[in-house]
Parts: sequence; C-alpha cells; structure tokens
Amino acid sequence: MHDHPAVKPLSIVIAPDSFKGSLSAAEAAAAMADGARDAGLALGWPDLRLTLCPMADGGEGTLDAIAAVWGALPRTMLTVDALGRDRRARYATSTDGRIGLIEAAESNGLPLVADAPPQPQRADTFGIGLLARQLLDQQVDEILLCVGGSASTDGGTGLLAALGVRFLDDVGVPVAPGGAGLARIASIDLAGLHPHASVVRWRVAVDVNNPLCGPAGAAAVFGPQKGAQPRDVAELDAGLAHLAALMLAETGENMLDRPGAGAAGGMPATLVPLLRAELVPGSTLVADAVGLARTLASADLVLTGEGSFDSQSLGGKVPVAVARLAPAGCPVVVIAGRVALPAADTAASGVTAAFSIAGGPATLDDLQTHAAERVRATTAHAVALFLHSRWSR
Amino acid sequence: MHDHPAVKPLSIVIAPDSFKGSLSAAEAAAAMADGARDAGLALGWPDLRLTLCPMADGGEGTLDAIAAVWGALPRTMLTVDALGRDRRARYATSTDGRIGLIEAAESNGLPLVADAPPQPQRADTFGIGLLARQLLDQQVDEILLCVGGSASTDGGTGLLAALGVRFLDDVGVPVAPGGAGLARIASIDLAGLHPHASVVRWRVAVDVNNPLCGPAGAAAVFGPQKGAQPRDVAELDAGLAHLAALMLAETGENMLDRPGAGAAGGMPATLVPLLRAELVPGSTLVADAVGLARTLASADLVLTGEGSFDSQSLGGKVPVAVARLAPAGCPVVVIAGRVALPAADTAASGVTAAFSIAGGPATLDDLQTHAAERVRATTAHAVALFLHSRWSR
Repeated sequence: MHDHPAVKPLSIVIAPDSFKGSLSAAEAAAAMADGARDAGLALGWPDLRLTLCPMADGGEGTLDAIAAVWGALPRTMLTVDALGRDRRARYATSTDGRIGLIEAAESNGLPLVADAPPQPQRADTFGIGLLARQLLDQQVDEILLCVGGSASTDGGTGLLAALGVRFLDDVGVPVAPGGAGLARIASIDLAGLHPHASVVRWRVAVDVNNPLCGPAGAAAVFGPQKGAQPRDVAELDAGLAHLAALMLAETGENMLDRPGAGAAGGMPATLVPLLRAELVPGSTLVADAVGLARTLASADLVLTGEGSFDSQSLGGKVPVAVARLAPAGCPVVVIAGRVALPAADTAASGVTAAFSIAGGPATLDDLQTHAAERVRATTAHAVALFLHSRWSR
Repeated sequence: MHDHPAVKPLSIVIAPDSFKGSLSAAEAAAAMADGARDAGLALGWPDLRLTLCPMADGGEGTLDAIAAVWGALPRTMLTVDALGRDRRARYATSTDGRIGLIEAAESNGLPLVADAPPQPQRADTFGIGLLARQLLDQQVDEILLCVGGSASTDGGTGLLAALGVRFLDDVGVPVAPGGAGLARIASIDLAGLHPHASVVRWRVAVDVNNPLCGPAGAAAVFGPQKGAQPRDVAELDAGLAHLAALMLAETGENMLDRPGAGAAGGMPATLVPLLRAELVPGSTLVADAVGLARTLASADLVLTGEGSFDSQSLGGKVPVAVARLAPAGCPVVVIAGRVALPAADTAASGVTAAFSIAGGPATLDDLQTHAAERVRATTAHAVALFLHSRWSR
C-alpha cells in the first residue's frame, strides 16, 4: 500500500498464555501469527520474522507447552493417583537431559479422584514423588515441579516418602500417608532419601501466595474444594502447623510465614526445608524453561495475551512476566478476551497496550466460539498500527 | 517510564464523527483527547499537540459541527416546514461571510411533521428555499446544503419556487407545490430566479447513491418512510420521471442516470440542472468546510471514529474521508463502538487500524452507557502503541 524505507527484517515474538475456555496457548499463538501476517500483507511490509513461543502459567497445560518448545515428547510411566490407585502419568525431559519437568496434576490432580468419595485426609502426593524419583534416577540437574489443582493436603510428605524419607510417630513407626497422619509425626528419618535428591535444583511453580496455615491457609481455603468438612479443615490445619513446627526445629526454616507455602496442600512445607526447593511464580518458571529471555532479546515487537487481562494479571501472570523480560524500548502488546486495566496500570506493568478481541457488543459465548478469528483480526489491527507507526518518520 | 530521544513535539489530530446513540462528535473528540493525554502521561512522552476537529457526515448535527469549527453561532429565522407551517430554523455563515450552511432537516425534517397525518404527495422543500434565499440576500459565495432526513418528494421544486422559479401547467398556471403536481408541469419560468442564485456555488451533501427513479429511486425506497402508500409511490415516481424529462429537454442534463439524484426526495433533479449544484459526499463537504486537509497536513497521528466501522464506512463516511486526506505515511486509527471490517479492507480504505471500545463481553447498552470512558481507555491503548512503536529504534 505504502512506500517505506528499506529496513532490517522486523522480528515479532508471539508468546501468549492460553485463553481459558477457548484456545490453547499454541492455538492463540497461531491465530496471532495469522493476524501479524495479515497486517504485513495489507501494509506491504516485506519481511516479518515471527517466532512463536506459546506460554503457560504453571497450571494445566504447562507440561505440553514447555515440552513443545523443547521439542521433546512427554514420556509416560506408571505411578499412583492421590488415593494410591494405579495411574499412568506423563513427565518430560529437556533434549539435553538437564531439566526434568513434572505437572503434578498428571498424577495428583483432583479430577483424577472425582470418581471416588472425597477423602481429603487420606489423599497424598506419593504419586508425584514416583515421577520425581524417575527424574532423579536419570540424574537431571534440575526438576521443575508445577503444582496446582492438587487433591491432597499432606504438606508434601507423600512426595518425600516416595523419595525414601520416613515420617515416624513417637514409637518410631511410619505414619500412614495423607494429611490425617501429620499431627502424629514425631521424627523424620532422612537416611533413605534418594542420593540425587539433595544435589538436584528443585524449582516449584506456585500460583498462589497463601500461607501454610490459618484462615488463609492451605486447609481453610483449598480444603473445602477437595471435599474437606469443617472438622477436616481444623484437623488438616493443625497437622500442617505441627509439620511446620517440626521443620523449624529440624532445619531452622520457618514455613509459617512464607507466602505461597499454602500452595498445593502445603507441599512447600517440606520441599523447601528438606530439599531447598525454590518457590517461583509459574510464568517465571515457564519463561526460564523455554529460554524466553533469549528469544525476546532480538524482538522488535512482542505479542502476548490471555483470557482476561485484569488486576490479577499484575500478580505475575503470563503477559506481565513476558513484558518484564522484553528488551527495553520494545513494545509489548496484549491481546485478550477481556481487557480491564487502566492505561496507567498497563504501562506500569511493562505492557505498552492491550486490546480486547471483542469487535463490539458480544456475549462471552460469542467471543469464545470465534476466539481464533477474533484474535487474528485484533492482532492484525495492532500489528498494522505498530508497523505504520514505526516506519512513519 | 522509558527513555526516548528528544524529538519534535508530536501532533495528533482528532477528527471523529458522532457515535450515534451515545456521543456527539465533540464529546467523542474530547474523550479521545483524554485518552491520548493518558497515554502521553503513562509513557512519559513530553509534548503532544492535540488538535480537535469534530466531524459530521452531512446528516443530523452537521450544522453544529461545522459552526463550532468556524467559531460561528448559528442564526435562527422564520421559515416553514414541509407542510408549509411556520417553523423557526437555523442556518450558519462562516465568519468571513463567504460560505453559507443549511441543514435541510431544520425546516424540512420528517420529525417536524410527525404530528400531522402523512402527506407524502403534498410535502415540499419551500422552507429550505427560504433559508437559501436568506443566504443569497447576504451575497455568500458558496452555499453548503446538507440534505437527508427530508419529509418531501418534490424534486427540489419547492426550494426553487422559494427562489423565484415558476413551475407552470399547460395553460401557464403555477402548479401547487409538492410531489403531486410534478406530472402536470409543462414549462419552467426562470425569469424571477434570485439574481445571486446562478452566481453562487451550490454544493449539496448527499449520503446515498440512489437514482432518481425506478425501483431504487427516491419514491420507491424513501417514499414509504415518508408515509407514501403504493399508489403514492407510483405517482411520485412518475412525477419525478416527468420532471427529469423536462430538465433534459430544457438543459440537456439527464438526471435519470445520475447516482445520488434520488437523495432527499429527488432534490438534485432540479438543483443540478438549474443551479449547477455539485453533489458531494457529506463527509467530504464537511471536511472542506472545516479545512480538514490543512489541519491534517502536519499530523503525526490521526484519530477518528464513529459508532460502527463496517462495510458501509467504505462508502465515504467520516473515518474513510478523514483517512483519504491524511498525509502519506501518517497512521490513521479508528476508534469505534463496533469494528467489523477485515484488516485488508481497512488498509485499502487508508485506515491503519481500527479498535472497538468493547473491553470484552458487553451489551450495546453497556457500551452506549459508558461510551466516553470506553473511548478514552481504548484511545489510550492505541496512542500508547503508536508512541512506543514510533520511538522504538
């Protein structure tokens, strides 16, 4: 359409989260790429280099997203679900074998035990431990553990038991797995811990800031959705508090005042003190795993997005995590189903501009049904504005 | 927020149409200016020069829009409505007295006769002629006549009668005004025409491309909304055809094949052959009247908009008219209640990008109720993307 100066090819990096309820991250990225190409064609921009980097926030879909960027096929192994029943679950390893990746919900997920009566006091994380053990046997340097959606409230004791740790009562007998036994743990025997467990770097993606105990803790807030009745909540909360006291005495680590320790049934309560696990925001863990910072380094424009870009997004969800890693001076555009953040907050988050895929009056159902074409159309307009603004003097 | 090179102040011209049902053009322009300032503040851009130029498309509100840019207060005079009843109506004159402006609906509008039974065959344009006569008496160089929303189907004979033209039957008696008499006109006596009428430049803003006669003509398409029954339509259509034949014989001008001659009850049928009136798209007439091309010449970014940016917009509505006048290489951004035009069509129209004010799922009522704040927020995001893209490398 227009004349423009001959310039170096422009690099556009496309790194969206999924649009919950309508598009996977890969589908969203593909739709954005189509839109960017539409804009390039419409404006006659000669050469756009598109790099697709579908993201995730550590929740459902994270395993697939990271494995896809790694070019690694997830492997499947036999483990157990939160009630100890056989369950085939997937994990992944980076192609160089250095990093192992576990999505806890593959074995411990709440939907996997939806067929049985809720047993909030019995459910445990042993199955996640079996997956971790497999990665330790492979001698990985680093284990990425995406928790969230868990069915248990066992403070991570099940996972550690699977790695060889023994939680003993006051007469030296191992307590039964699950949250019910936490209050009876009197001592911890680390002698049998997998030898590689204390060598490897553990990084745990947590998506909440809840503390371990109390009214905002793992039992009180997340227990009920796992089937806990008020009495269960009180007992689980007391059990986690007891576990924290034990950890403080054994390791000097106080997990009661650690934000995020209430994630995934209190798994950080033991993983942090005993394995020196780091708690990181899910989107940061994913960004590291896929080498996003390196990918972004040469970007001229970054496109990201998610279902709803709102005040919750400022808590480290994908678009803001992407914006933080974008090079200085590089515009970052969010395409979202819903945009509900004032321009000032948007700018403060590092995002340049955010556009809703709504083209006018529309229902949520309309937007979800036509999400791919709406993402494509909205992206085309945003990229057109970028291209035109950039080459105008 | 960011560092950026010291540059000349950026000029943003803001030239929207009204958002039908929610914002006048002036209100829309003010909301866009607020949004542009928000973006400037958020990004720390030092110096934005905003020029507000509310636009109109030749329809309702055009008189106010142009008079505001002229800095002229519309004047009021006594004239008549389409049924010949007293009616006070407004007109405006540019401050240098060179250009006169008439919004026909001020005297001839359909809503003004809604209190009476429909009289589609009797309604005439005499009242518009009285307004025009006033401007001719003031010796203006140019008369801008915005038609549309008319109650009559008289081929403009009423207007010319008010200027002194006599339409005579076959025994030399003046025929009664209105569409009913057209078929009986046998000759036209121009001797009494206001002497300045053939000196002045007449420009008529038409907003439709309908022909004068036939199934897509003035009577068939617009007659029914003026109360014409099928028999009325047939008679009015025949009357206009007769008038066209007379004009062809008298002046050599064939109005039957002129697109737009069917506007406003066929007013062009006489105004073009007898007054050498030019038919122009409404938005072009307004752009000329307010000197838009000159205002746009130094723009770095142009913001425009309307209620719905869709395939109808390509027919010369405000955003596309604005885009055509924007300097080469200057991005033109449309902010609209609804955006329903593919990127390729948008680019072909000269518009760089178009964004809906919808921030997600929303009803039409939501968007209309919060139109000003939504226009402001959407504009802020678009301007932020422009600013950031422009200064990035």
